[in-house]
Amino acid sequence: MRELIVKGVRIDDTFAEAFEMRATALTITADSARWARQAAVTTMGFGTSVIGCGCEAGIDRELTPEETPDGRFGVRVLLFAVSRTELQQQLQNRVGQCVLTSPGSACYAGLHGEETLELGNAVRFFGDGWQISKRFGGRRYWRLPVMDGEFVCEATTGLAKQAVGGGNLLVMGASAGGTLAAAEAAVKAIDAVPDVIMPFPGGIARSGSKVGSKYKARASTNEAYCPTLRGAVNSALDEDVASVLEIVIDGLTREAVAAAMRAGIAAVVRLGPKRGAVRLGAGNYGGKLGPYHFHLKDLRP
Amino acid sequence: MRELIVKGVRIDDTFAEAFEMRATALTITADSARWARQAAVTTMGFGTSVIGCGCEAGIDRELTPEETPDGRFGVRVLLFAVSRTELQQQLQNRVGQCVLTSPGSACYAGLHGEETLELGNAVRFFGDGWQISKRFGGRRYWRLPVMDGEFVCEATTGLAKQAVGGGNLLVMGASAGGTLAAAEAAVKAIDAVPDVIMPFPGGIARSGSKVGSKYKARASTNEAYCPTLRGAVNSALDEDVASVLEIVIDGLTREAVAAAMRAGIAAVVRLGPKRGAVRLGAGNYGGKLGPYHFHLKDLRP
Amino acid sequence: MRELIVKGVRIDDTFAEAFEMRATALTITADSARWARQAAVTTMGFGTSVIGCGCEAGIDRELTPEETPDGRFGVRVLLFAVSRTELQQQLQNRVGQCVLTSPGSACYAGLHGEETLELGNAVRFFGDGWQISKRFGGRRYWRLPVMDGEFVCEATTGLAKQAVGGGNLLVMGASAGGTLAAAEAAVKAIDAVPDVIMPFPGGIARSGSKVGSKYKARASTNEAYCPTLRGAVNSALDEDVASVLEIVIDGLTREAVAAAMRAGIAAVVRLGPKRGAVRLGAGNYGGKLGPYHFHLKDLRP
Amino acid sequence: MRELIVKGVRIDDTFAEAFEMRATALTITADSARWARQAAVTTMGFGTSVIGCGCEAGIDRELTPEETPDGRFGVRVLLFAVSRTELQQQLQNRVGQCVLTSPGSACYAGLHGEETLELGNAVRFFGDGWQISKRFGGRRYWRLPVMDGEFVCEATTGLAKQAVGGGNLLVMGASAGGTLAAAEAAVKAIDAVPDVIMPFPGGIARSGSKVGSKYKARASTNEAYCPTLRGAVNSALDEDVASVLEIVIDGLTREAVAAAMRAGIAAVVRLGPKRGAVRLGAGNYGGKLGPYHFHLKDLRP
Repeated sequence: MRELIVKGVRIDDTFAEAFEMRATALTITADSARWARQAAVTTMGFGTSVIGCGCEAGIDRELTPEETPDGRFGVRVLLFAVSRTELQQQLQNRVGQCVLTSPGSACYAGLHGEETLELGNAVRFFGDGWQISKRFGGRRYWRLPVMDGEFVCEATTGLAKQAVGGGNLLVMGASAGGTLAAAEAAVKAIDAVPDVIMPFPGGIARSGSKVGSKYKARASTNEAYCPTLRGAVNSALDEDVASVLEIVIDGLTREAVAAAMRAGIAAVVRLGPKRGAVRLGAGNYGGKLGPYHFHLKDLRP
Repeated sequence: MRELIVKGVRIDDTFAEAFEMRATALTITADSARWARQAAVTTMGFGTSVIGCGCEAGIDRELTPEETPDGRFGVRVLLFAVSRTELQQQLQNRVGQCVLTSPGSACYAGLHGEETLELGNAVRFFGDGWQISKRFGGRRYWRLPVMDGEFVCEATTGLAKQAVGGGNLLVMGASAGGTLAAAEAAVKAIDAVPDVIMPFPGGIARSGSKVGSKYKARASTNEAYCPTLRGAVNSALDEDVASVLEIVIDGLTREAVAAAMRAGIAAVVRLGPKRGAVRLGAGNYGGKLGPYHFHLKDLRP
Repeated sequence: MRELIVKGVRIDDTFAEAFEMRATALTITADSARWARQAAVTTMGFGTSVIGCGCEAGIDRELTPEETPDGRFGVRVLLFAVSRTELQQQLQNRVGQCVLTSPGSACYAGLHGEETLELGNAVRFFGDGWQISKRFGGRRYWRLPVMDGEFVCEATTGLAKQAVGGGNLLVMGASAGGTLAAAEAAVKAIDAVPDVIMPFPGGIARSGSKVGSKYKARASTNEAYCPTLRGAVNSALDEDVASVLEIVIDGLTREAVAAAMRAGIAAVVRLGPKRGAVRLGAGNYGGKLGPYHFHLKDLRP
Repeated sequence: MRELIVKGVRIDDTFAEAFEMRATALTITADSARWARQAAVTTMGFGTSVIGCGCEAGIDRELTPEETPDGRFGVRVLLFAVSRTELQQQLQNRVGQCVLTSPGSACYAGLHGEETLELGNAVRFFGDGWQISKRFGGRRYWRLPVMDGEFVCEATTGLAKQAVGGGNLLVMGASAGGTLAAAEAAVKAIDAVPDVIMPFPGGIARSGSKVGSKYKARASTNEAYCPTLRGAVNSALDEDVASVLEIVIDGLTREAVAAAMRAGIAAVVRLGPKRGAVRLGAGNYGGKLGPYHFHLKDLRP
């Protein structure tokens, strides 16, 4: 695999292989930025991987009062799942357990479009007959009586049918600290890109996995990228790589994922090999599985 | 229902009715306090209620390097579930998806005892044969190769068979702001009590529910505590109550839940009715369901 | 509780309390009646109760070639769930795992109406791009290549929004054998009623449950109807009752459930107290939970 | 791929690639063979594949009264899952919903060994305090009061840690009818082999799948074995193959799976190419995933 060198950082001539997913977005508001963020963090927790968590979820960005339907502080969150039905299930379960329950919260569509998922329509049953529907500005909302007043929830939210899951960067460094610094710089840069999330803890995964295992239906560690196994396996790591971290990116569109990867690469290059990473790569399955291929050479600064 | 008045706050002569649950605790460590906390927050997210989330989960407290097995920063988290099997499933699923994956993390038993749950024993399969077992100081650990080095995970953790779920306080105020201030004061005080969590967002639930609904197998809003329904239903609310918030408490022992409720009541009373809540109550099912009854009059300051 | 006596069988002056559910129906066909039935039995298995199984499922009736869309042998099955999303999830999961996989099977809508669920639309992804859509007689179908030819699956099926779950009869007898004979007679009679299923094994449940338990979020045995506990609890059983069996009935409409209960009562009365049951009752929650009340006195022969 | 020809049936020089699974066995009894079988069929339904159903489940064989712990008619069933925890969850959920509820049933360990799963210990909570433990012949049982008397359930059952999942045969014929006849003959022969199940409907799957899809985390059709795609893809099928059916075999041991495959091959060969199948193959992933390889040439008659 040939590689480019940009400002001292080696960039593999490879590509991230990504998949088609279904996605949606929500706007969660509250009386304060703190409580809007709290509701979002609780709702989007335990959402790192569709296999174990049912969905991949995260915060897109914080919203000012000017940007929300009710003029309060808000957070826009994104959810990605394998199918429309899984997405619907996760959406209503998470909103019912973690937004509806959060002090002072309201919940609105985070995207609009021709196809929709049930939002308030799905959680309204909690009202046990006391829920009220109202139309306002061409949209429909449910008002459910709760102990601190009312939970206002838009009836539906939009469905993104061609969302993209599994964009990624492999950040490789000569030390644990440098690799983490580079990955954190990439996460910060990608945070500013709209319409994407990084579902792993703090945006970073240190557990690269391969498809398959000697146990049926399990994923397992990708030994080719484990520094401690360099001598024992057919390693993908150079001598100077002591640590690898992955940034997984899910986006509402192919363009959003490309913009996020581009921003992440730029941030890692900007930090440079001394303080950050010495090499950037990406994960794929040989190109045979996922229909979206993001070549690093097309995204470099 | 007669009531006590303590420093101007009315305390209902009632009790919180709580249930037997299974629980466990974990110690999650990382190279920095920030990353230990990030792993804990992601792992414990979407864990407000056993019905919708499979478990109730939260942070007990942050740990100094002196308090952790590996001398790094840490967080102690608690998980509660309805049965041992559910707890085991949630434990390994959450650790596998959210701790194993988090940069630099390690995971240890957060309690010890005669009965145990599988911790490293359950997630070790991710190592696909490269995992190594080691004994140290009388305990067994697994070391799994990951991309930033190794994930160290204790083989088992302890099971608390007589944990208590559903301790609670109903905080009632004359305004939304005062009620929230009182609930936040209670949350802060309870945070300092060991061996308990408050699983709802930021520790507070605003969606009191009753058992049953006209829809099969659903919970629904507890209309008796909804201020907007006061005129329409047989309300439990006085004229001066404009908002109600609930603090749900799960604890490893009955004593821990009692201590937490006591701390919460004291904090609300200390804040007083002008700046905080005018009344404190608790939720129960008439005493026929849960075996643990926490009477407010026994816990008042 | 007063009671009627019809041909020697005591009929309690009580009612079955039932709930609103979402339901759908499928027509499963195959090259032989045997394989159509095999696909249906596998697909509808492990579907006794929404709590533990996600849906309640069963066979409505077998269909002659004249009654099916493709002129082959068929079986009509019904699925009931708590919400539209749960129903959609169960529908596609069960069809994908158990109908799609069954030799020679095809799958069609079992009811039509304004609102629909995804059927072929949801499982078509198995075709990995080789699936073909066709319209025929005003309906749309998917054709997925499989190893024995093609799996034909209608794009959608109908959703019954006011289906009824939890119709029931309690069959009480002086001996285990007589009670089972009476319950089996009722099952056979109800089998002939269209648009209903009896989701428990062979149509019969012997484990009456009450809401709640000393363990959080569990159901538990209804001790008032357990003959072995007669001396120890406030029993609902007379001296001459040695065994109780319950027939739970879910139907697409209120009328279908009423017709099924009527047919079951008639069959038990017809068998008489000597060879069958001495008493008939029904389960309810005091009338406060479920909106549908089926009074036995209105349904007696 | 060279092939053998045995009595006119071509046998591919290939192997079935199988995986390590966890398994357990139960003995379900009732007052009649019919009700024992009914309980088993309901309990083991919707158990074709671990991915969609959580476990793979089926009937090993029917038991005479001489073979059961309580001298009644019985059925031995097997359950296979990916992990011990999944297996425990499926075990207790299925027994609680479908055996406990079935008229006159009892449930016992179907295998014994050093390691155990919770059986009665897990479902005893249904008794809500009325359950009784008893020891008899060195084993422990729970007795739970139910409406037709008592549900007797052994406290634990054995865990098979080196069970094998994914043994398989691909039966290829010149006509749909011949292929089905050959597959049915193989199923009948394998039914007589102890310690194995065939989890698909009637023992047969017609939907061969490959790992991966252009959609994330999905399986998809194995186009190489779809007769209708022969012209469009790199097909694995000869000119004379018009239909393919797969028999998937899970067994408690490697030897049991080998014996089952041997019995299936012999039955297909015995039927011959005129009335049955013209060719036999097996599915694998190139040998890199599953640790168990069953070569057809070692198992031929």
